[in-house]
Amino acid sequence: MDRGRLEAFSDGVFAVAITLLALNLTVAGPGHGTLAHVLGRQWPAYVAYVISFFTIGIIWVNHHMLVSNVRVVTRLLLFLNLVLLLFVVVIPVATGMVADYLGPGGFDAKLAVALYGAVLTGMSVGFGGIAEWSLREGRTLVPVPPDKRWNARLRFMAGGLVYLVVTGCAFLSAPAALGLTGVVAVYYIFERTPAVLKAGQAAETAGSTGPPQDG
Amino acid sequence: MDRGRLEAFSDGVFAVAITLLALNLTVAGPGHGTLAHVLGRQWPAYVAYVISFFTIGIIWVNHHMLVSNVRVVTRLLLFLNLVLLLFVVVIPVATGMVADYLGPGGFDAKLAVALYGAVLTGMSVGFGGIAEWSLREGRTLVPVPPDKRWNARLRFMAGGLVYLVVTGCAFLSAPAALGLTGVVAVYYIFERTPAVLKAGQAAETAGSTGPPQDG
Amino acid sequence: MDRGRLEAFSDGVFAVAITLLALNLTVAGPGHGTLAHVLGRQWPAYVAYVISFFTIGIIWVNHHMLVSNVRVVTRLLLFLNLVLLLFVVVIPVATGMVADYLGPGGFDAKLAVALYGAVLTGMSVGFGGIAEWSLREGRTLVPVPPDKRWNARLRFMAGGLVYLVVTGCAFLSAPAALGLTGVVAVYYIFERTPAVLKAGQAAETAGSTGPPQDG
Amino acid sequence: MDRGRLEAFSDGVFAVAITLLALNLTVAGPGHGTLAHVLGRQWPAYVAYVISFFTIGIIWVNHHMLVSNVRVVTRLLLFLNLVLLLFVVVIPVATGMVADYLGPGGFDAKLAVALYGAVLTGMSVGFGGIAEWSLREGRTLVPVPPDKRWNARLRFMAGGLVYLVVTGCAFLSAPAALGLTGVVAVYYIFERTPAVLKAGQAAETAGSTGPPQDG
Repeated sequence: MDRGRLEAFSDGVFAVAITLLALNLTVAGPGHGTLAHVLGRQWPAYVAYVISFFTIGIIWVNHHMLVSNVRVVTRLLLFLNLVLLLFVVVIPVATGMVADYLGPGGFDAKLAVALYGAVLTGMSVGFGGIAEWSLREGRTLVPVPPDKRWNARLRFMAGGLVYLVVTGCAFLSAPAALGLTGVVAVYYIFERTPAVLKAGQAAETAGSTGPPQDG
Repeated sequence: MDRGRLEAFSDGVFAVAITLLALNLTVAGPGHGTLAHVLGRQWPAYVAYVISFFTIGIIWVNHHMLVSNVRVVTRLLLFLNLVLLLFVVVIPVATGMVADYLGPGGFDAKLAVALYGAVLTGMSVGFGGIAEWSLREGRTLVPVPPDKRWNARLRFMAGGLVYLVVTGCAFLSAPAALGLTGVVAVYYIFERTPAVLKAGQAAETAGSTGPPQDG
Repeated sequence: MDRGRLEAFSDGVFAVAITLLALNLTVAGPGHGTLAHVLGRQWPAYVAYVISFFTIGIIWVNHHMLVSNVRVVTRLLLFLNLVLLLFVVVIPVATGMVADYLGPGGFDAKLAVALYGAVLTGMSVGFGGIAEWSLREGRTLVPVPPDKRWNARLRFMAGGLVYLVVTGCAFLSAPAALGLTGVVAVYYIFERTPAVLKAGQAAETAGSTGPPQDG
Repeated sequence: MDRGRLEAFSDGVFAVAITLLALNLTVAGPGHGTLAHVLGRQWPAYVAYVISFFTIGIIWVNHHMLVSNVRVVTRLLLFLNLVLLLFVVVIPVATGMVADYLGPGGFDAKLAVALYGAVLTGMSVGFGGIAEWSLREGRTLVPVPPDKRWNARLRFMAGGLVYLVVTGCAFLSAPAALGLTGVVAVYYIFERTPAVLKAGQAAETAGSTGPPQDG
């Protein structure tokens, strides 16, 4: 299996999943009160949509960063990638569940956000597995030096730890736990890529001249 | 991140979004009156479908024109691209809302079209962000000369201004505002690409010989 | 715009449309009679699914054959391609309508199949437009010689004429008209590619050695 | 037709089908009992989802292994590939049917799993057709030697035989038959690729240096 087809398939799954997210915003037709009222009741759907959209977007960016550095695609990598995608495609459904149950509140709202956090945690397990796989000798185009491996582990697995915290915190406060998920998304959007992880990118963009203008 | 994977992911999202549009044309099964009657009632769905289809189609064409000229993909560009897609994937849902509420008329029809215009405006903000990003020094394969930048800005941002007008006008007349969206689509289909913007295309198609036969 | 991205976007749309087709086979959950009974009532859905699946499959094959020979992608070609896709993505919805209305019979069944034929005719107009566009001087890698153009026109436009006949015949007999659509699909699957149209393919596969083993 | 576009289209279909699978996990909104109760009732949906997800994932991996070795894409190969995809896109619908009918049990549960097995068997027929096609002289980049052909046949067609057994066994025990499908998925995930089938991969990855670290 060449890396290109692994990327093409994964990109397809990410693209479909991120587009299906929007179906959770579907507006009921006439006969359910005024449109303004119908839309107002849906506020949790908007919040959950934006958070999930950027969460999937960031997984996609990080997935590319990892995979672009892969030298040989093995069966084990394919399996870990399928585990990642197994949870990615559930995100639209989990987002819809949060959108439906957050408004009414109570234990159901807490359970919905906890399960949403659990899906993101599962996704992180698949992602962490790919990261761990790629740290072994001979698997990447530009190897991560042994003394930088814990840095890399921390970077790729920190998200998973926060999602585990989200899952637990949801039982204390559903909105706070959901907000924490949003904070992870914002963090990953604006973080600077650690220098050690730029190796793969450097290899890849070596053909272009001059430095990029922003990080 | 290489340009190719940014394009592949974005193309996937555009392709899924444009295909989901058609689901708004789904016909209710037997038991809702004659088929001719059911179809006749759906006329706003057909109008909204055609306008949204060509609107997404044109965004895709313009997106390619911008991105094909990008030299290095940065985090900021990825973020701006996600903002663009955040609104693109909502277009099918917004189109369905217009299809449902335009027929009955009244304030709900006006609000539906205004929100449809707002989604297209949001999309234009993401698109304008990418355009503005690409005007800075060193970011494009073929730079836009400083004295041509306002031309480029005008071209890529004019659509956004019209969509803002659509959003406002919807409260005066929903059908007129929707029609204005259609005019934007027709304009972008038939406009000739300004010479300054052909630079990227020229670089790209330099390998082929002889001039294209139409613009 | 390079040919590669036109193909990637179109392939994405074809892939999503062909997959959405299967949603018309969705089985109602428990509580609607025995499963065998529920499935038995759905027979028109199975017939319509298989015909539409191979129809989209063949459009995809023929689309590739045309586009692989294109030298420069122009705005006009992009527009014609969007017209083709405008109808392609409606095929799943039209197939669902046929599946729902063919069983009950009567005028609604005839109207459903006629509209299905009309969608396929519209698709053929977009396809024929691309074919006609590609026959002009300087637009293809391997030009079609002037004396072979009518052959090429006939081949690419014959399907459209049959779909027009389907649209009309549906008012005489819905099942016969649907069957005629199936005949078109079977014909295009098994026809031998006319030699004149193999030019593009020949150019493309010139790197491989030895003849293919079947046509 | 070049191999690349066959792969791109097939990857798109696999990606959409695997993502649509997750829609079977959609949770009913408030008003159907507590969320915990709603989720508990859906257990067959979770089991069926995981089995179908890895089943499609493995078809995708094996599809790539076969197609990456193809030298020339013929009409017959395109047709066989469409037969494969005809059944692949039905898997999400069949999975939903199993999810709905397995819980209530009785003859409907047996029929649902039998039909699920039949869809997988049909998919295997398309897959076996591609495998058989590729064994003929001159069709692959790295030919399979005549004395290894039965090995290859056995490997690619064994799954189909087991799915046929699933279809029959479903009438004895629906859960056991579904479990057997899961066993096939687990087997293909962890099997070592037979040496004879690595030829295509070897040809493909010849540019990279050093052995892969796992099989």
